[in-house]
Order: sequence, then structure tokens, then C-alpha cells
Amino acid sequence: MDSRKVGILGGGQLGRMMVEAAHRLNIHTVVLDGEGAPAKQINALSDHVNGSFNDPEAIAELSNKVDVLTIEIEHVNADILEDLEKSSSTKVEIHPSPQTIKIIKDKYLQKKHLISHGIATADAESVESTPESLEAVGKKFGYPYMLKSRTDAYDGRGNFVVDDESKIKEALEFLHSRPLYAEKWAKFTKELAVMVVRSTDGTVHSYPTVETVQKNNICHLVYAPARVPDTIQLKAKLEAENAVKTFTGAGIFGVEMFLLEDGEIIVNEIAPRPHNSGHYTQDACVTSQFEAHLRSILGLPLPKGFSNLSTPSTNSIMLNILGGDEPNSELEICKRALETAGANVHLYGKSTRPGRKMGHVNIVAGSMAEAEARLERIMHGTPIESFQKSSDLAGTSENPLVSIIMGSDSDLPVMAVGANILKQFGVPFELKIVSAHRTPHRMSKFAVEAASRGVKAIIAGAGGAAHLPGMVAAMTSLPVIGVPVKGSVLDGVDSLHSIVQMPRGVPVATVAINNSTNAALLAIRILGAFIPEYHNKMEKYMANMEEEVLAKTHKIETNGYENYNK
Amino acid sequence: MDSRKVGILGGGQLGRMMVEAAHRLNIHTVVLDGEGAPAKQINALSDHVNGSFNDPEAIAELSNKVDVLTIEIEHVNADILEDLEKSSSTKVEIHPSPQTIKIIKDKYLQKKHLISHGIATADAESVESTPESLEAVGKKFGYPYMLKSRTDAYDGRGNFVVDDESKIKEALEFLHSRPLYAEKWAKFTKELAVMVVRSTDGTVHSYPTVETVQKNNICHLVYAPARVPDTIQLKAKLEAENAVKTFTGAGIFGVEMFLLEDGEIIVNEIAPRPHNSGHYTQDACVTSQFEAHLRSILGLPLPKGFSNLSTPSTNSIMLNILGGDEPNSELEICKRALETAGANVHLYGKSTRPGRKMGHVNIVAGSMAEAEARLERIMHGTPIESFQKSSDLAGTSENPLVSIIMGSDSDLPVMAVGANILKQFGVPFELKIVSAHRTPHRMSKFAVEAASRGVKAIIAGAGGAAHLPGMVAAMTSLPVIGVPVKGSVLDGVDSLHSIVQMPRGVPVATVAINNSTNAALLAIRILGAFIPEYHNKMEKYMANMEEEVLAKTHKIETNGYENYNK
Repeated sequence: MDSRKVGILGGGQLGRMMVEAAHRLNIHTVVLDGEGAPAKQINALSDHVNGSFNDPEAIAELSNKVDVLTIEIEHVNADILEDLEKSSSTKVEIHPSPQTIKIIKDKYLQKKHLISHGIATADAESVESTPESLEAVGKKFGYPYMLKSRTDAYDGRGNFVVDDESKIKEALEFLHSRPLYAEKWAKFTKELAVMVVRSTDGTVHSYPTVETVQKNNICHLVYAPARVPDTIQLKAKLEAENAVKTFTGAGIFGVEMFLLEDGEIIVNEIAPRPHNSGHYTQDACVTSQFEAHLRSILGLPLPKGFSNLSTPSTNSIMLNILGGDEPNSELEICKRALETAGANVHLYGKSTRPGRKMGHVNIVAGSMAEAEARLERIMHGTPIESFQKSSDLAGTSENPLVSIIMGSDSDLPVMAVGANILKQFGVPFELKIVSAHRTPHRMSKFAVEAASRGVKAIIAGAGGAAHLPGMVAAMTSLPVIGVPVKGSVLDGVDSLHSIVQMPRGVPVATVAINNSTNAALLAIRILGAFIPEYHNKMEKYMANMEEEVLAKTHKIETNGYENYNK
Repeated sequence: MDSRKVGILGGGQLGRMMVEAAHRLNIHTVVLDGEGAPAKQINALSDHVNGSFNDPEAIAELSNKVDVLTIEIEHVNADILEDLEKSSSTKVEIHPSPQTIKIIKDKYLQKKHLISHGIATADAESVESTPESLEAVGKKFGYPYMLKSRTDAYDGRGNFVVDDESKIKEALEFLHSRPLYAEKWAKFTKELAVMVVRSTDGTVHSYPTVETVQKNNICHLVYAPARVPDTIQLKAKLEAENAVKTFTGAGIFGVEMFLLEDGEIIVNEIAPRPHNSGHYTQDACVTSQFEAHLRSILGLPLPKGFSNLSTPSTNSIMLNILGGDEPNSELEICKRALETAGANVHLYGKSTRPGRKMGHVNIVAGSMAEAEARLERIMHGTPIESFQKSSDLAGTSENPLVSIIMGSDSDLPVMAVGANILKQFGVPFELKIVSAHRTPHRMSKFAVEAASRGVKAIIAGAGGAAHLPGMVAAMTSLPVIGVPVKGSVLDGVDSLHSIVQMPRGVPVATVAINNSTNAALLAIRILGAFIPEYHNKMEKYMANMEEEVLAKTHKIETNGYENYNK
């Protein structure tokens, strides 16, 4: 696809998956790392460089063999890269820029950079490795605060939570001989992440917002999309894009964020390379983060809409496979993943060691509930104590597939029956009061935003001059199901005709008077036309109905109709 | 995932993609082929064997290095493999079995094998390379018939169409010095193919039925799923599975079939390896044909449901990238593919040569129409003379997403309006007369089969004691939209109440009396909730409605209401 050679500093799993993506596009890659590194295992070129990605000579040797240099890890010798870039004797391009790597690899410089560019992040302070310095920070930030190593820290190594003054001694021992800084404590409810691609011309594009679940400070699960409202997802995307815009050079960036208790989002850390939270893109997106990285550093085009999940009904969970206590015991999880529909196993070719990242499994499904059911199957038998299943209070789902709205709480007794059906079928839904006549602007906002929030069908109940279903249908392109609610006069025929007799152009799927059960079943049939889980449940529901009636007729036929109700 | 080494005879693109799949599972592969073969380029093992996959010594050398032997091409030395299998000095497993390779690599033996096992295929006859022998076959089979080389034939090379007796001389010259057989002419309307996986225990599983489009005897496009009715798809799957059951050994098999004019399906040829018609599985299915092959020969589990497209709304087209007349001119197509949403480029690392298979593009979309629109964008500017766009006579789609039914042809004037809306939106649909009262059994059959035929919504129009929508809804789990048709009495209120007042448990989405427009728009909204193409079209349609009304009010406001209709 491109005749230029790409040199990669670092040959771990990220380099390996970069090489995999390069193979598909017939792009040649040369790797600098120790012999037999994961990336070298799948790359037949004989001119790899053996050595450290911190060794000036090895970096110089690599740069002479390639046209473009990139990294799979930020802990490289950025000064050498900077010299290389300035040198007139080499024409190698370096992405991301050495300046970017230099800022990001020192977490304190990174913080200061973000703060100076107006990106929301926790306050940070440089500290000395002395009790006095740490006490001063404690007075300024309050307790707890985070003490972090400025460099060479990953997967929580190099971090220490200073709970109160009495922990300062322990903190200094734990992080002795490392350059330190302190970070104000952030009370977060979820950790979010967004992969952002920066093109050589500086434009940025981002993948969907995901949610990361850590276990012992190591990424355990990634939910894509994140189980937060659409507005939060969008906010996170924009904030991540803004953060990446402040850096220079091309490539993919992983932006880790905290969702705070008050709904604000702050940036935690940025990685100037492919990131564990973006592995789901290999199976859930059209273009993986690794291919996007290669395309961006080579100036190759990105596809229109590359940043979406591959279909609107795609949901994905990534599970990291860590080395078990027994050699190769992690392969048990992989075997179960092989047996599971919608699961893909990715192994890195590393020798097994307890707690080491050995590979990951991407699970793809038509709904998050289905993805979680598959995850549970795969994790069966292994400790899942930190496994956070998304369970919602009925009718308050953050990612509803169905939205039930009604004009007044007086409609609730009728509409709650349908809500219970959705609950029974395990459909994520929300239930709200939205009045056409009393909250017309709220209604407009609801209708306009519903589709982009992931809602697939709206159920609207209304009585009398029932305008809600038709008005919402006029402002959304989603299917709207209308439930005529019977009022005190006219037996509900007023509501029925107000809902069903819509003019040409704006349909409302009307069901029988007061029959919110059928509205819910209709919504489930709509979901079932595209999501097998609901199709199967509906088939079962209908078979049960048949059985119930058959049981009743059996009773009549055996006992006689006169004894039926005795 | 498995510590056994796999040896591959042949290192072309199929071997390369097998190696790619093996890397992901951390399975080691050793390749026998010439130096620098595509599969070797992406495989860092140093113990590859350089040589021909027909050379006994090279095969023996390979077999000493690995635990399991497999092939990426059937034109290997099967006798040597048979000897190896019998030999007591080696413990190598061979998949598929040498006997299977032996039968399949000789196309005449393959035909005779299929016929003797009761698999439907064209009649075949062994012939001598003499005019007399060919004339005798012409008398038996009639003209035209196919003259084929028994061995070493692929991509149409080695085939000659004998139109009549006068062509016999030319045929013998074209195929001189090759072992020949003749095949009875098959009048086919489409070419179908199914990838079948045979496990070590002999069980078979198959991928979806696809449609292949050839150009100059080389596979040009693959549509997945095939654009044929569901019943034909299923028949092809079963026939392919039955054919593969007759062979021995594990692995994936590509079964090429003809769909004849009379609706019968016959097997054309079988390949005992991954196949060009299965490349779409890399991006459209959860497990690719290459990974399925590796798993089956190693006895690793296959996932439940691996053989489905990744979501029920996934549609895919594969486009082969052939070498252009100018070196690397094929990269133009690849560049456009990189820019296209839902397209993935796979290049093989082969030096460019006109007509050579250099790579392929897999296009994935929520509907076949969307996939074709993407294909058109990618192929823009290149000759597309044999490009067969799926265009249907309105209302006769073979893969309808929406089915319009009505109780009587007297309902057609009302229902045709909705049909035209579907046509205008480019929705594949069918229109049928199905009467609840006069064809009750036809109605049952229709309702029961609709979902499995790929229909996503049913529109049913009926008048008077309108039972059709509700009865169909009782026998399908799909969403059913009811259109009350106005009769000669009661203004359609009879139909409206018959349709909308369904009992709890069986919903019908009822629209206004005679308003099939809204029924069609509702069906499109249902599709649009899951297929972006229809969502976008609906948004545009609604914006247009708004513009029309704004233009009208502008006319009233500028000309005065009294002059509005003048």
C-alpha cells in the first residue's frame, strides 16, 4: 500500500499488532527490541535491530533502515529522537513528534502541559522526596492524594495513595529513588477512555468512548461503548480530541479520563500510541487502532466513519488475559473463548508469567447484555470478584433501547404494565413523563435526541386529545408506538382516533386502547427483527402463550365446561 | 493456543492468511514453498523449507519439522503424503487426508466420487485426446459441453467450451498434452458457494451461502449472503455439507455450486482448503475461514454459531484486486477502499503482474444496497462492465426486508401507494395477496416463514372484518403493521377497530385508515433504527416535508391567502 518502511521502537504486543495490521496492507516494518520480542516473531524481515529502544546507537541503526519511525511505548529515548529529527544527515520522519513523546513520558510535564492548554485535569505539584515536601502538598491538596513517579510508570506501578500524613514515610520508601510529583485526588465514578487519531495535517478523529474496568491497577475489562449516557460519551470524545490537538506529530493517542461524581470529565493520562483500551477496535470497528495508527503516520487516508462501531447494534467487551499462577493456565480462558460465539482470541506470543498480559479476548454482540452473558461463560470458573455487571434499576437504563414516555403520571398505571413486559424480556429501557401540552420544549428535545442516544423505539401513551405520540413522531425518525389511554369519557375512542389518524408522512404505530402490553411486545418485535436475543425470547413467549391456552382447553375438555371455574 | 507446529504445503496468499490467523492464536507454522513466498514474508520462523510442494524430499523435510501437515493448494504430491501417512517412522498428522486430496486434485475422479455418493453434479465422461472420442461425447451429452483438464486447472485455465463439432479440433489444440474429461453442460443462473468445515471427528459446519460473480473466469465479486431466497440458501448449505461429508480428514472445504434454471442446485467443484469465495469471512464473520481451518485440523473447538454473519444485518461484498496493466495501478482501487467506510484492504505481498490476484477488499454494511454503493465508490473509474448490480422489479425482491400483503386485489390501489414509498426509499420488498379467509393455509405458511426469509417488517392491509394483520401477527414474531382499508360502509372504522383492538399478547402496529404511506414510512423507521442508510434517508425525507410546508407558507405570506390557489 505504501513502499516506505516503518521502524517501530519497541516490539511488545502493541508492536506485534501494529505489524499484523501492516502485513495486511503489505507495509514493511522493522522492529527495535530484544531478540524474539513478540513483534519480531511474526515479522520475517531479517534486518530487525536487536537492542534497547533507549540505546542511541540502536535507534540510529534503525533510523538508517527505515523512512518513518514510530513507537509502541513512550519510555523511549526522546532526546535521541529529537537529535535525529534535527540532524541533516537523515531524512527519517518521526511520529508522534519527539517533543510530544518527551512531554508525555514525564507525567508531571504532561499534567502541566494539559493544564496550560486549558484541558481539565487534576491539579499537580512537583515534589521533593522529603517528608516536608509531601506534608506541604498534603496541606495544599488535602488527603488522600496521589504520589506518582514522573517516569517509567505503567499499570499502576509507580503510584502510591497517600491516605494521610502517617503514610508519607511508607510512600517515600515505596517510590524511593524515583522523580516524584503529587496529584490532587479525583473522586471518580467511572474510568472512560477514547482513542484519538491525529493526522499529519493535525486534524483529529476519535473512536467511540469506552469504559475501562481495572483490577489490581491493571486494565481488566473494556466496555465499548461506555455504559454512560450519550451526552457523557460525546463530552468525553470532544475532551479527548481537544487534548490530543495540543500535541504535535501524527499517530494514535489513548486518552484515559475520569468521570467525576458531579458529571464532569477530567483527563487522567495520555498515551502517544495504541492503547489497551483500544484493542476492542480489532473486532468491533471497521478499522483497528493499529491500522489507523499506521495510516495516520504514513499520510494514508482514513475511511469516512472509521470511528464508529461496525454496526449501530454492535456492542463489545474486551477481556485482558493475564498469566495465571500455573504456567499456561490462562489458556483455559482462551479455550472457553474459542467455544463462545462472537469471541475472538488474540495471543501475544509471550512466555507465561503470573499477572503478565498474555493476550486478550474481544467479545462482540448485538447487545451489551448478550456480550456480558458471553463474558460470563468465558470467565466461568475464574475469580470474577471485580466483574461489574451492568444492572439497572428498571426504567432508568443509561443506554435504553426503548423509551416509554407518557403525558401525565395519571397514565402510569396503564403504562407500567408495558414497562413490566420490557423488564421481563430484559430490555434496557427508560420511563419518563413528557407532556406535549405542558412541557412542549422538553418534548422537542427528547424527540430530537432520542435516536442519537441509541434508542430504537419510543412508546408514547396519552389520553383525550392525545398529541404526544404524533408530535414526537413528527420530530424523530424512530418508530413511535402510540398507546391510547382511556379517559373518563368517550371510552378512549377520542385517544385512539387522535393517535391513529395521523396525516400521510408521519406514522404512529397504534395499539389497542390501554394496551401498553402490546406496545411493549411490538417494541420487542422491532428489536427482535435485528437482535437475535429478543427474537428468540419473543418466539418463546409466543410458544408459552400457546401452551397456556392449550392447558386451559385441556381443562375444559377433561372437566367439562360447567366445572371450568369451580 | 496449541504447542503443536503446523506445516503448510504452499505459501501463496491462502497460506499467508492461514499464517496470519495462526499468529493471532500464537500457533507456529512452517511453510514449504519458494523463497520469499507471500506466507513466508510474514512468518519469522527460520526453519521454513525452500522448494516445491511437489518435491518428495522437501515434503519429507517439512514433515520432520512439524506435528500436523496441511495444504493451501490441492496440486501437491498426494502420493508422497499417502506414503508419509502409512510410514511408521513419522507421526505427522495430515489434514485433509491424502486420499481426499488425491480424489479432489483429479477433477474427473472428483466427479465420479460425487456421483457415486449421490451428490448432484453434472454428468462426466473420461475422454481420449482424439476427435473420435470427443465426437462420441458430443453425441452423448449434446452441445455445448465442457472439455476440461483433469489436473492442475484453476481460474478457468484448463477449460474449453465445445460449442459444436466444428470446435473439436481447436479444443484439442488448446488442451493438448493434458489428461482430459468431458462434462455435460449445466444451464445455470447463478454460481453459489459454501465454505464447509470438517472436524477431526467428521462433523461438518458451514458458513452462509454466498454468490460468486466471475469475470474472465476469475472470481471477481462475492456477495454474502447470496442474493437468492432463503430456501435456496439453505438447500445449497445442506448440499455442500453432504458433499463434504463424503470425504475424509479435517479442514475447510470450498464447495462451488450452480443454481440451475429449474431451481435445482448441483455441485461444480470442491477445493479441500480455504477458498477465494470465503475471504469475506475475515471481516463479515466472527471466525474467519483461515482460523476455522486451523482450529479444525488441530482439534480446537469451533465457536457456537461461528458460521453466521457477525450480526443479522451484516451484508458483505468481496472484491478481488487483480494486477493492472501498469505496475501497481491496482493500488488506486486500494486507496479508494481505504477512504471508504466499512471497507477492509487485504494485500498479499506479491509482485504485480497484469491479471494476478494481488489482494482483495471486503466491504461490510448494514444492507446489500449500502454495500453496493460502497463498491461503486471503490470501483469508480475502473471498467465495471461485468458488475452486476442487484436491481429488482419493484415488489419482487428475492431478499425482501419488508413484505406487503393484502387480503384481496381490491386493496391494491390503497396498498400500492405504500409500495411506491418503499421503492422510492430503495427498500427491497415483496408484494403478495394473502387472504386470511380464503387462503388461510397460505397465510400460515407465509407468517411462519417470514422471519427466516430475512423479512424485518410485514405490512398487512385489510378491510371490513379485517383479520389478516392480527392473524399474521399471531403466527410471527416480526413487527406487523396493519392498514385499515375503507370499505363501502362504516367509513373504515370497522377495519380500524378489527385491526387495532388486538388482545394483550399479540400487537399490531395500526396506522390511519387507508394510509399505506404511513405504514411504509413506519417500516422504514423500523429498518432505520438499525440500518444507518434508512435512518439517513428518513431524516432527509422529514427535512424535505418541512421544506415543502415552509415553501407553501411562504407563498401564502407573500401572495396573500386569497390568491393562494390562483
